[in-house]
Amino acid sequence: MAKQSDDIPLVTGHTFTHNDFHHYSEMNQDRIYMDYNATTPLEPEVIQAITEALEDAWGNPSSNYIAGAKAKALINQSRESVARMVGGRAEDIIFTSGGTEANNLVINTAVEHFRRNYQAAKQGEGDHNGDMACLPHIIASNVEHDSVKLVAEHLQKSGKAEVTFVPVSRVTAHVEVEDIMAAVRPNTCLISVMLANNETGVIMPLQEICQRVKSLNKQCERFRILLHTDAAQALGKIRVDVCELGVDYLTIVGHKFYAPRVGALYVNGPGTKTPLYPMLFGGGQERKFRPGTENTPMIAGLGKAAELVTSNLTDYASHMQSIKLYLEQQLEAVFGDKIRINNHFPGSDILPNTCNVSILGPGLQGWRVLSNCARLLASVGAACHSDNVHRPSHILLSCGIPSDVAANALRLSVGRGTTKEDVDAVVEDLRETVQLLEEAR
Amino acid sequence: MAKQSDDIPLVTGHTFTHNDFHHYSEMNQDRIYMDYNATTPLEPEVIQAITEALEDAWGNPSSNYIAGAKAKALINQSRESVARMVGGRAEDIIFTSGGTEANNLVINTAVEHFRRNYQAAKQGEGDHNGDMACLPHIIASNVEHDSVKLVAEHLQKSGKAEVTFVPVSRVTAHVEVEDIMAAVRPNTCLISVMLANNETGVIMPLQEICQRVKSLNKQCERFRILLHTDAAQALGKIRVDVCELGVDYLTIVGHKFYAPRVGALYVNGPGTKTPLYPMLFGGGQERKFRPGTENTPMIAGLGKAAELVTSNLTDYASHMQSIKLYLEQQLEAVFGDKIRINNHFPGSDILPNTCNVSILGPGLQGWRVLSNCARLLASVGAACHSDNVHRPSHILLSCGIPSDVAANALRLSVGRGTTKEDVDAVVEDLRETVQLLEEAR
Repeated sequence: MAKQSDDIPLVTGHTFTHNDFHHYSEMNQDRIYMDYNATTPLEPEVIQAITEALEDAWGNPSSNYIAGAKAKALINQSRESVARMVGGRAEDIIFTSGGTEANNLVINTAVEHFRRNYQAAKQGEGDHNGDMACLPHIIASNVEHDSVKLVAEHLQKSGKAEVTFVPVSRVTAHVEVEDIMAAVRPNTCLISVMLANNETGVIMPLQEICQRVKSLNKQCERFRILLHTDAAQALGKIRVDVCELGVDYLTIVGHKFYAPRVGALYVNGPGTKTPLYPMLFGGGQERKFRPGTENTPMIAGLGKAAELVTSNLTDYASHMQSIKLYLEQQLEAVFGDKIRINNHFPGSDILPNTCNVSILGPGLQGWRVLSNCARLLASVGAACHSDNVHRPSHILLSCGIPSDVAANALRLSVGRGTTKEDVDAVVEDLRETVQLLEEAR
Repeated sequence: MAKQSDDIPLVTGHTFTHNDFHHYSEMNQDRIYMDYNATTPLEPEVIQAITEALEDAWGNPSSNYIAGAKAKALINQSRESVARMVGGRAEDIIFTSGGTEANNLVINTAVEHFRRNYQAAKQGEGDHNGDMACLPHIIASNVEHDSVKLVAEHLQKSGKAEVTFVPVSRVTAHVEVEDIMAAVRPNTCLISVMLANNETGVIMPLQEICQRVKSLNKQCERFRILLHTDAAQALGKIRVDVCELGVDYLTIVGHKFYAPRVGALYVNGPGTKTPLYPMLFGGGQERKFRPGTENTPMIAGLGKAAELVTSNLTDYASHMQSIKLYLEQQLEAVFGDKIRINNHFPGSDILPNTCNVSILGPGLQGWRVLSNCARLLASVGAACHSDNVHRPSHILLSCGIPSDVAANALRLSVGRGTTKEDVDAVVEDLRETVQLLEEAR
């Protein structure tokens, strides 16, 4: 649960009840949302797909009659759409409850796969291979989402895996391919690097990492290193193609691209070309990789949102890019030397929608500015770290941003519908807020 | 994926596409659904709660501003409603993606809890306690859902647990308390018995089991046996009160009581009075017991459906009971000696909505009858076993139903809206179908 600060008047000392919602709706008209990296609203077509399925496709997809067949058809149509969005085949898509589950599933699979192969190798060699490391080794960047980072740390703490968190470069803010390769050990079973960072928007060199690792894998097929990317922040913002990237697994998170709160995992040939071991056991749904009666309506919404991305990605991206540029320009025009853009790094590509800025000066910490803004809804970093807003983001610090600058950081992530008028209003809101805070000192 | 038989004309040789749905809708008006134990439609108020949340509560519940607070308030309101439905406290409810996840979570927790306690005990006793069994032991009935059965079997196969499946009595069709107690070993860590069976509707003596086990637990607090019930089929049909039952864990499955495809786990004081170890790691949602950005709309729908159950259970149950009785009477009136009701057991209570019958005679296997019915939509057993329809249900066999009778079984489960006219139509449909099948021989 997020700890509330005394400085966040909107949320402090008041538990919201249903009666507040009307009030909220009124206020909401004045509010401008720039936290699209935390979550997105749903597209109207997506809501329609969900409600249609709620009304008409409530049958159990496993049932042997037409109500079941209809639900199953919707799910498989969605599977096709999600596969098309990432350039994979329908059979490569496993629906999950969300990105957290997908990331956990990949990491647990890699560890289990190593364990089985290691046991087989030991038996094959008469159980006397004392040289072979017995724990699987996982490599991840040091700016991964908690649903990668904390799984890896848990496995490490419980003695089930070794983990190396490779730091991102303080110059480029992405992991360097050479640093990843230097971290590889004979017992490395998985490399998990996010496609784009949630706070900086920095895009990681996945294609290069995969190429290098695949060359290495050719030398030792049995202990092949598996390749995973969490594409939560990239989908719907940049082109994502699993074949071009060369990954074995790719995590898909609906609520970051105007879809509902479900997810999917792309696996290149699950159970055949690429291992996948279920974490759950039950009724056999999703070819036993992820049992549980399918959430048909949410899956239908995910499919519709994927179709929209496939059709409109270029438009979405160019709109967000131009709005973000306008935002950066206006901030620089209004704040001059006091603005510092935190996510311009030489040689690094950035998501088209993600602006990370600090307004320099004492008493202008990100959380303080945001909690005093009248209209802007944004955050200082990942929503799931909202109880840590008083500390500067470890991600920005890792990228070489000085601590006093990082403490003032605001993540402003724009969306498909953000307008220049929204930007003007937000910049004016920030100007007034900063003026107030400075006068109050 | 369900294998389709040549005898199921509706589904065979044809993959359903979006264009079929109009066709389906027309056909659907003539269809009568009697498979409410497989899944239920959603109540209109539930759909409304979901769509309102989709439109208005899409904010990230972890966000430190009003859009997040609104989502969080909805989730907590739902938590209260779900808790009230089962007689627990809001803080005892952990939302999950569904019943499969909830059941897996309980069983994994019990095993992990035993492991930790066993290690602690070993260390405390200087690591020389050779008498103490080192694997945790799980007791379940032999008629559990696959999301209990297969988890236990997986742990057994992978050498992580011992499992005893206690057979239900062939007289009462429920597990006998004495049989459960006789299966207890010094290393028993969990007893998991469903509250009501999905095929027979037989209600299990959970209260008695819990009382007996709690007396036993008083003798040895450290290796306390944890008590779990999967209440998937009971909720919305009979009164369920966690305090009266005395369970530590209770699984809640939305789509069995007119709610969407999400679930929840009741835990009596999670992490304090009762252990709960997460299977997933991530952003810290659900007090770290079940991380992942919350599925606000589906959770809102679950809460609304729970409110309906709390308010209307007596009406729902008495309506379903009277319709089921009428169904059994009409079947007996039409089929006379040829009908055999499979779920009347001396001394056992049955869910008010569940009728399990066989129409006796050669060539009248349940799957064959159902696939030739013009109007009835029902099943021969659990939907997730729909690829096994040609074999008689192992659950009925376990309850002492002879194989030839079990092969002809039909599970007819009625719902809140099932009418006597529906029953008349279904009985007539069955009469015509049986006549046709007998003439065709």
